[in-house]
Amino acid sequence: MSANINFSKLLPLDWQLGHAPTEHEAPTRWVPAKVPGAVQLDWAHAEGWPPYWKGEESNRYGWMEDVFWNYSARADVPPLSPGERLFLRIEGADHHAEILLGDMVVATVTGREHVLDLDVTGRLHDGDMLTLRVHPAPKMPGAEPGRREATYTTKAAVSYGWDWHPRLIPLGLPGAVTLEVVRGPRWLSCDTTYTLSPDLRRAEARTVVHVSGGAAGTRVAWTLTAPGGTALATEGVLDDVGAADLRLSVDDPLLWWPHDQGVPHRYLSEVGLLDGSGKPALFQARRIGFRRVELVMHPAGWETRESFPKSRNEPPITLRVNGRPVFGKGSNWIPPEIFPCNETPTRLVGLVRLAKEANFNLLRCWGGAAMPRDAFFDACDELGIMAWVEFPLGCNPYPDDPGYLAELDTHARDLVRRVRPHPCLALWCGGNELFNRWSLMTDQALPLRLLNSVCLELDPWTPFIPTSPLEGIGHGNYLFRYDDGREVYEAMRQASNTAYTEFGMPGPSAVETLRSFIPADELFPPSPRGSWKHHHGFGAWVADTWLCWDLLQDYFGAIGDLETLVRLGQWMQSEGYKAIYEEARRQKPVCSMALNWCFNECWPCAANNSLLEWPARKKPAFDAVAASCRLVLASLGLRKFSWTPGEAFECDLWLLNDAPEERPAVAVEVWIHAEGADPVLAGSWNAPAAQAGENMAGPTLRFRLPRSLPGGSFRVNATVSGRPDWSSSYRLHNRGAAAETTPTPSLQLNA
Amino acid sequence: MSANINFSKLLPLDWQLGHAPTEHEAPTRWVPAKVPGAVQLDWAHAEGWPPYWKGEESNRYGWMEDVFWNYSARADVPPLSPGERLFLRIEGADHHAEILLGDMVVATVTGREHVLDLDVTGRLHDGDMLTLRVHPAPKMPGAEPGRREATYTTKAAVSYGWDWHPRLIPLGLPGAVTLEVVRGPRWLSCDTTYTLSPDLRRAEARTVVHVSGGAAGTRVAWTLTAPGGTALATEGVLDDVGAADLRLSVDDPLLWWPHDQGVPHRYLSEVGLLDGSGKPALFQARRIGFRRVELVMHPAGWETRESFPKSRNEPPITLRVNGRPVFGKGSNWIPPEIFPCNETPTRLVGLVRLAKEANFNLLRCWGGAAMPRDAFFDACDELGIMAWVEFPLGCNPYPDDPGYLAELDTHARDLVRRVRPHPCLALWCGGNELFNRWSLMTDQALPLRLLNSVCLELDPWTPFIPTSPLEGIGHGNYLFRYDDGREVYEAMRQASNTAYTEFGMPGPSAVETLRSFIPADELFPPSPRGSWKHHHGFGAWVADTWLCWDLLQDYFGAIGDLETLVRLGQWMQSEGYKAIYEEARRQKPVCSMALNWCFNECWPCAANNSLLEWPARKKPAFDAVAASCRLVLASLGLRKFSWTPGEAFECDLWLLNDAPEERPAVAVEVWIHAEGADPVLAGSWNAPAAQAGENMAGPTLRFRLPRSLPGGSFRVNATVSGRPDWSSSYRLHNRGAAAETTPTPSLQLNA
Repeated sequence: MSANINFSKLLPLDWQLGHAPTEHEAPTRWVPAKVPGAVQLDWAHAEGWPPYWKGEESNRYGWMEDVFWNYSARADVPPLSPGERLFLRIEGADHHAEILLGDMVVATVTGREHVLDLDVTGRLHDGDMLTLRVHPAPKMPGAEPGRREATYTTKAAVSYGWDWHPRLIPLGLPGAVTLEVVRGPRWLSCDTTYTLSPDLRRAEARTVVHVSGGAAGTRVAWTLTAPGGTALATEGVLDDVGAADLRLSVDDPLLWWPHDQGVPHRYLSEVGLLDGSGKPALFQARRIGFRRVELVMHPAGWETRESFPKSRNEPPITLRVNGRPVFGKGSNWIPPEIFPCNETPTRLVGLVRLAKEANFNLLRCWGGAAMPRDAFFDACDELGIMAWVEFPLGCNPYPDDPGYLAELDTHARDLVRRVRPHPCLALWCGGNELFNRWSLMTDQALPLRLLNSVCLELDPWTPFIPTSPLEGIGHGNYLFRYDDGREVYEAMRQASNTAYTEFGMPGPSAVETLRSFIPADELFPPSPRGSWKHHHGFGAWVADTWLCWDLLQDYFGAIGDLETLVRLGQWMQSEGYKAIYEEARRQKPVCSMALNWCFNECWPCAANNSLLEWPARKKPAFDAVAASCRLVLASLGLRKFSWTPGEAFECDLWLLNDAPEERPAVAVEVWIHAEGADPVLAGSWNAPAAQAGENMAGPTLRFRLPRSLPGGSFRVNATVSGRPDWSSSYRLHNRGAAAETTPTPSLQLNA
Repeated sequence: MSANINFSKLLPLDWQLGHAPTEHEAPTRWVPAKVPGAVQLDWAHAEGWPPYWKGEESNRYGWMEDVFWNYSARADVPPLSPGERLFLRIEGADHHAEILLGDMVVATVTGREHVLDLDVTGRLHDGDMLTLRVHPAPKMPGAEPGRREATYTTKAAVSYGWDWHPRLIPLGLPGAVTLEVVRGPRWLSCDTTYTLSPDLRRAEARTVVHVSGGAAGTRVAWTLTAPGGTALATEGVLDDVGAADLRLSVDDPLLWWPHDQGVPHRYLSEVGLLDGSGKPALFQARRIGFRRVELVMHPAGWETRESFPKSRNEPPITLRVNGRPVFGKGSNWIPPEIFPCNETPTRLVGLVRLAKEANFNLLRCWGGAAMPRDAFFDACDELGIMAWVEFPLGCNPYPDDPGYLAELDTHARDLVRRVRPHPCLALWCGGNELFNRWSLMTDQALPLRLLNSVCLELDPWTPFIPTSPLEGIGHGNYLFRYDDGREVYEAMRQASNTAYTEFGMPGPSAVETLRSFIPADELFPPSPRGSWKHHHGFGAWVADTWLCWDLLQDYFGAIGDLETLVRLGQWMQSEGYKAIYEEARRQKPVCSMALNWCFNECWPCAANNSLLEWPARKKPAFDAVAASCRLVLASLGLRKFSWTPGEAFECDLWLLNDAPEERPAVAVEVWIHAEGADPVLAGSWNAPAAQAGENMAGPTLRFRLPRSLPGGSFRVNATVSGRPDWSSSYRLHNRGAAAETTPTPSLQLNA
């Protein structure tokens, strides 16, 4: 939303792309290139290859990691008038690019967050060759192929291969590259920050402007318009280094809230440099929001660790927004595309809308991958979804190496400056699972101390944590049935974490989706080789993931067709996720977050923990999770998945409430529904009214399932009288009557 | 060790002191003042009061906290020649002082770390009044009297009253104040830093000089002389802002080691500014040392937290020095005086010598109090004692307040710059017990994020922790018998912490000491009021501390005189401390530190956990602890303190070894010694050789105590053949034969 509305003319750049084995050699073949783009996409297009996401096509791209890619364009520069300047602007690189004017390297760009705005007046002439030389994918010398290769770089580790991402390392120019003739001033930066008074009744806002080419004394005007249209305005002048510092005080600001707690109010902030006639020569408009976000202890958090020798209390992980504790319901966000140039604003906005539709209020942008572009954060701002933002460290021992620290420092400063104006920003995090055995980092690691320091300097009022999980927080599991034999129902009831910030439940993609990328002859039965494996159906993580082929057959017996496989797998994913989200909510306020792994996908997975298939198609688990994340619902704490007719059934009945207002008294009934049989009332509860945000535990119901329970499944429904939108339904497995109707031999002996 | 050896003349300052209720009023009475000094000492001297440390004398001083104290002196300034400048230098204040030239406030000084070096040329004239106006003790408005008053200040919280410190808040000028005529350049700073290559075979050292009044081109010479006398030298010149940047590479540097692991090698670093004739115009000499210190995980540290949901691994707390893990044995250091002007170099050096005599290699300088002056760190450097240095935060909720953060930032930068040149520096720590219920701070607290950031910027290669305890680390207990009835022997065997960085064991001071400050009529029996209480014998912490009057009578029956009381209390303190230090060592390598609370005292305590009485007198526990901290010793893991003759006795026999060399095979015997009875052999062990630093568990011995065990105590000795210096002895309580020789009624019934 920023523009140079003084004279400005974009010059055409017609890019060609070629590769060479070293930086000293020239490419021998050139193909047309798109910018923004990726070398892989251009080369595949020139070669006429099938899409990289079909079958095992992505295996073709390995050689592209290790060559130098040259983007080349001839500059078509008109004669400049006095006072005109020429700017070359490069919005990021994958991953390290040198900028050559003719044969001379004049600058470098490293990573997607780095925006280079280079004054090339008098240095780039009409007809000169402009070359952007992209270096091979960074790889730690000596590392085995895989994520460890990304240990010395801010390049996303996920590109080196993950259990839901093929090895495919995007290289090239992911953002715009422009050549522009400019007359008058040009933005260097325009930052608006604010502090809120302790009682939230006053915001002191500040805009600091830096421009180049602006004369001292140039007027700078700033207007801040409230949602209702009331505007505050102030004016200043540029000093002799092109800077201005403006202040506005906002009384009783309308606060930004997550959508489920209030209105995500935003203010329109407009900054303009006024030319001699009072018309804007430079203009920037953006929406800002006022909110306070903190990480605080849960109410009982100080009461632990009372025996001697005494350790510290667990770190806080409850989000408090504008003074109110907010249970974080949401998911782990990953890039919606392997190639960032395909991450369109439309896609980003659509996915954030789906997050709201899932009743989520928090997305954790996972640090193993690159952070989303601005359209994502704009959508989160507008729709009231909080964003947890991570730096590019994931599951590796990122080193105390000075070169790496310098790259990380630059990256972090660029990322923090880009994201901090967004009111959706709730939390900075150093990266994923860094304090665990597979990462080998500790609190002493200089990269994490550096990130803490950068966040403190640039955005002190947003919380920072070095990694997830911290002490008390839980990651995993990602299975319906754990290795120790416990089902997710039991395991979660036994857990007592302060937040569940990553937990998965795998399920297959839709039949139609599977058909779109798995060759017909591989489709069924699924094979632990070929496309099923390549797309993470087999051997993705621990054995039998993510398709869970063995587990499904263990529950349901032989599976004879793809449709049945998908139906059963998606059922278990749906019920598994409901079990976790609702148990996490029942553990409030000790527990304060439930974020599944993961929301979306970056390419078609045969099976995955995601709620959405690539590009943005709902799995059945999506609706199941949306139901479990309603602000208010009746919830059953179940004991297990598979039951036999006539078996003694037990469950806890709760009313969960994250709403910011009181819940009235309601009557809840629990019914057993089997297909083709009459519903059976299993229990009821007259739940008294509850305060805003207050969960309430009802009775533990114990009853016997009907002896006659037709069908392979049955439903247990908790119905709320007068509030069907609060009612819940669980579909459980009926494994049939065999176990109970056939007495065991020992019993026969005793009879 | 820095000096202005160009022309420099100190001018006399004859200080008078007075107080006024506000800063706008003048004192009505003036008394002679000492600088360095404290207002309390000057005023007491003028009034002819008895020493503040006798009886309840310190209660007199309360009113002095809340008035403004004016130090005043008439300037006696000779006419200055051309090129001469006049400097006023103030080395810290307690706590906030304004500097007035005549009636004009020209600067302020806050805290003891702040050194102000003010050019007053042309601003302070002959005959002018120089006034230093010291503000009242900082107190958080609304706080109850006590440590909470220190929540918004870098003033040490301990001065507001603690369980071993009376409420007595030193105010005044704790450091030198000088007025000096100077010709030629003057130091602004002269900092030497270095980096060590990963293999420790090369040090890249750097000295950055800043001076005022030095002409561009002035030669700067730097010489670095190794312990053996070999010197490296380099030279540079001042640039036009008075700065020079010099480098030296040291191949195969002789490393600084803690005294028990090697030689604490130091290099002499001499920096001089040379005048036109090549003679030094400014000169600084100091000793530096090369060492790498890290905090690393213990060997099994990555193997924990394996179940789902998975949390993080515990943070590292094992010190690794020059690549070698070093078990930290030592104590918590507190200021040796309430009034810092009394903290003489002689006293500091003497106390550090005693720490070495106690076989300590690590002192934790506790953050509730001010950090020691340079003589302490110089002594630690020389004697090879590592120093853990804390910022001035202790047991309070230090706020995110901008004013406090600014004061803390300045304080931290001054402290880090002062201490970082010392090779003894092993660890920075944000403060004491901040992540516990009584402090209410969390990882999100901006003061701690700020301290991390300052340490990262100014001293990145020294570890930083935000507080102690962290997860895994244990603080406490401070009792021989816990509230739950367990004795320290059992409780410590059940603990499994990664470090014990504070644990206490109270014991009374010597009879002679008690007589020196408790009025004769209060001496015996001790009373829970009056001087015994005022000097922390009663009601200091939880009930019955620190004298443990009830506990002692519970073990030993009625106590009839002071001598017996002291003898019994000191015995339990000695044995209690041995139990903890040795159990912590047996838990190596999971455990990596044992630091008792506390080493010394700042005034005479009736009873305390300290090993030394004020000012520097050994308690019997000192020698007991020194024995438990020998590099190599035979150690017994005992089960309890009180025994009856004939009772079944059990203990674990170990050989502890923190030595950097292999321990040869030895034979160990365990003997029971009772006064007036023949020793009885209870067991033996042929211990094989052990590697450097390797502990070895021997047998668990089980035997029956002799039926005849005369006296109130007996000794269990572990004697090492050929190495009496490795033998150990434990004195246990013989509670007599009553319990076992009188069968219980129920046994009689069965007989």
